[in-house]
Amino acid sequence: MRFELTREFLDILQEAISAQNIAWINENVCELHEADIAAIIDELEKEEATYLFRLLNEDTQSEVIVELDEDVREQLLQSFSNKEIADQLENLDSDDATDLIAELPADQLEEVIGLIEDPETAEEIVDLLNYAEDTAGGMMQKEFMKVHLDWPVNRCVIELRKQAEEVEKVFTIYVVDDAEKLVGFLSLKRLLFAKPNTLIADLYQNRNMISVKTGDDDEDVAKIMEKYDLVSVPVIDLQGKLVGRITIDDVVDVIKEEADKDFQMASGISEKVESSSTVWRISRARIPWLLIGLLGGILGAQVISGFEGGISKVPQLAFFIPLIAAMGGNVGVQSAAIVVQSLAKGNDQFGSIWKKIRKEMMVGMINGVLLSGLIYVITLIFGTPILGLVVSISLFTVIMFAAVFGTLIPLLLDKYKIDPALATGPFITTLNDVLGLFIYLTIGMLLFNI
Amino acid sequence: MRFELTREFLDILQEAISAQNIAWINENVCELHEADIAAIIDELEKEEATYLFRLLNEDTQSEVIVELDEDVREQLLQSFSNKEIADQLENLDSDDATDLIAELPADQLEEVIGLIEDPETAEEIVDLLNYAEDTAGGMMQKEFMKVHLDWPVNRCVIELRKQAEEVEKVFTIYVVDDAEKLVGFLSLKRLLFAKPNTLIADLYQNRNMISVKTGDDDEDVAKIMEKYDLVSVPVIDLQGKLVGRITIDDVVDVIKEEADKDFQMASGISEKVESSSTVWRISRARIPWLLIGLLGGILGAQVISGFEGGISKVPQLAFFIPLIAAMGGNVGVQSAAIVVQSLAKGNDQFGSIWKKIRKEMMVGMINGVLLSGLIYVITLIFGTPILGLVVSISLFTVIMFAAVFGTLIPLLLDKYKIDPALATGPFITTLNDVLGLFIYLTIGMLLFNI
Repeated sequence: MRFELTREFLDILQEAISAQNIAWINENVCELHEADIAAIIDELEKEEATYLFRLLNEDTQSEVIVELDEDVREQLLQSFSNKEIADQLENLDSDDATDLIAELPADQLEEVIGLIEDPETAEEIVDLLNYAEDTAGGMMQKEFMKVHLDWPVNRCVIELRKQAEEVEKVFTIYVVDDAEKLVGFLSLKRLLFAKPNTLIADLYQNRNMISVKTGDDDEDVAKIMEKYDLVSVPVIDLQGKLVGRITIDDVVDVIKEEADKDFQMASGISEKVESSSTVWRISRARIPWLLIGLLGGILGAQVISGFEGGISKVPQLAFFIPLIAAMGGNVGVQSAAIVVQSLAKGNDQFGSIWKKIRKEMMVGMINGVLLSGLIYVITLIFGTPILGLVVSISLFTVIMFAAVFGTLIPLLLDKYKIDPALATGPFITTLNDVLGLFIYLTIGMLLFNI
Repeated sequence: MRFELTREFLDILQEAISAQNIAWINENVCELHEADIAAIIDELEKEEATYLFRLLNEDTQSEVIVELDEDVREQLLQSFSNKEIADQLENLDSDDATDLIAELPADQLEEVIGLIEDPETAEEIVDLLNYAEDTAGGMMQKEFMKVHLDWPVNRCVIELRKQAEEVEKVFTIYVVDDAEKLVGFLSLKRLLFAKPNTLIADLYQNRNMISVKTGDDDEDVAKIMEKYDLVSVPVIDLQGKLVGRITIDDVVDVIKEEADKDFQMASGISEKVESSSTVWRISRARIPWLLIGLLGGILGAQVISGFEGGISKVPQLAFFIPLIAAMGGNVGVQSAAIVVQSLAKGNDQFGSIWKKIRKEMMVGMINGVLLSGLIYVITLIFGTPILGLVVSISLFTVIMFAAVFGTLIPLLLDKYKIDPALATGPFITTLNDVLGLFIYLTIGMLLFNI
């Protein structure tokens, strides 16, 4: 059943560990799901984590190790001999084993590979290490079930029984020809209910056969599996030979990461960081955006300094500087976000740019009229009707410009193969800030007749 | 194989449709994957879409209809008689059929249900319509395979053969007791390789059995499937009876939607809208955030007006108003985004609030010192060393405050069960804008001795 990790449970567990109360730990921890055990270990101190981990049985250990946070896993592995690491690898699926070993320093990596007893496991890992992490090759595993076109069902069952020892989750059985080329697939369901002497050639399907190539980008793999509702996808090499498969759980991770990246971009963070990353890394990930903001602020200062004379004559003009700047930024980010999302979904390959801009301008118009009207009334509190007119006309103009830029910039970035999510960060805010100030102060000078 | 939709393909297809070139359409469209056909239909005009759809065979039709955009599907269904809709429903999985019929107006819905021929299908749909859309019950389907604890393997194969007609994708066979209570599961793999007279009771597994309840929130279901790497999860009612299952493809949609929602929040859009939504809906979704921005701008104007005398004496102070406001907002959003993400992952139930704030303050310190130093040098271009001092001290202070608020506010929102993603939108930007202005102008007054 489902387990909820609480502070109380952790306290009791930590006591049990320091009292070496193995019976309690066996009963209350070792029987949990591996993902829960990993979540517990993530919260423990290094010594406690190592102690608890060594109480688990071998199969559970390998499952847990895959689920741990990267930094916790690294710490834990430091307490392992190279031989112990090699043994762990043999219990893992080849993709997880490769990810694990790829985290080790280069010299240790070689030594660990030398210590793997099963030559097939070693070979699979060495092969998978060749692929870039963010490609289909880097995501795939070597564990899958495959049958030959010219086998009868009863031979398949025998062969698959052997293969089944290696494959944890079977979704689809792949069908290959004599040259090991992928020609189709067979569902386990279909095999289960077929007559023993039927040939695979008469049983397999090849309509709607979707596969990916080793070099395909991981985000493209995610999009394909999502689009075609696949739970696993076969991976073929340049000759069309079946070399691996990718399962949906790995793809869910890619989808999450991609969404996180967009969210961080929109929030002005340039690299993937987590709240557990080091202070230096977090600082570094943020500084580029802050520098853009700073640059925007300096340009803003330049613009305002150009209107210094006007501001000393009508200091009330200064009051609404933050309002104009903020609204331009907000509208720009809103428009950009909608475009970025529809680009990410691949919805918009045929929508014309002008149609989108027209729509955003209509939205801008509605919100612009509403907000400008509101601000006109409110401004009267602070000053003259002319000030009200300056602020409301500027606000409307700024909103319209921001809507157009917010739409145009992500579309342009996408056209030139730059991540359009860039546009939702401080980039567009800064641009609209500066532009907004210029519009506002120019209108101010004109209407106040300065 | 994979298909890429191009403008050229659409042009040729539209010609073929207007020329009623059925042979070309059959060869080039009808053999494609359903998801691709749906993507094509999404791009066609209503009459073309209806024409093309009617050329598809019945099974393909139902698959395509599920994959269509909601508004395209609605249009298409308008050209269907109620009987035709009822026939479509019989070909669909019960969850998809329920989603489809739920989109119809209430009176049409009842009539369509009356026209469904298979009583079991009708009953399943009526049952599923009871559950709220965003719960496990609203996501589940009635198609799954189940066996009884006391059956031998050979009986299972016979029973499952019957069940298999209804179930498109089998991942796991569920095992129930006499009271239909879920007691465990059996992989198809295990069944395939078992001896015919083995009892299920001796074959099934119940360790790590994860299930969800009908009333569970859809986002919780997504988190559970993600955490435990599940491709399907059984759904039980309050008595523990097995009533349905949820498959990973539906969960991937929930994960995407959730990520989209956070992204939109961060971009200041309050409801789920897409670039295809109406102008009115888009405008409405944005106005709340713009009003917050407007309110912030007005408060900012209030703050500045309180310093009017100072600004007329030292108009250079006005130059850096946008810079201070923008930087406070940027830093606040960055800090908030990290907290929101780790809350979304459920990583942080045990991290103390103070530890997090300390860390953010250290990050703020590093970036603050760097940026303040930089701005001090640059400010000298615009004015006196005192102005430089005012701007750099204020900037540092604002960055520190923004870091603390950015961390604190999402944590507080989360504590009071409000979506912490709210904090990454204009909310925090606005707060930091106003606060930053106050700090800046106060320091300015003090150092310029006004």
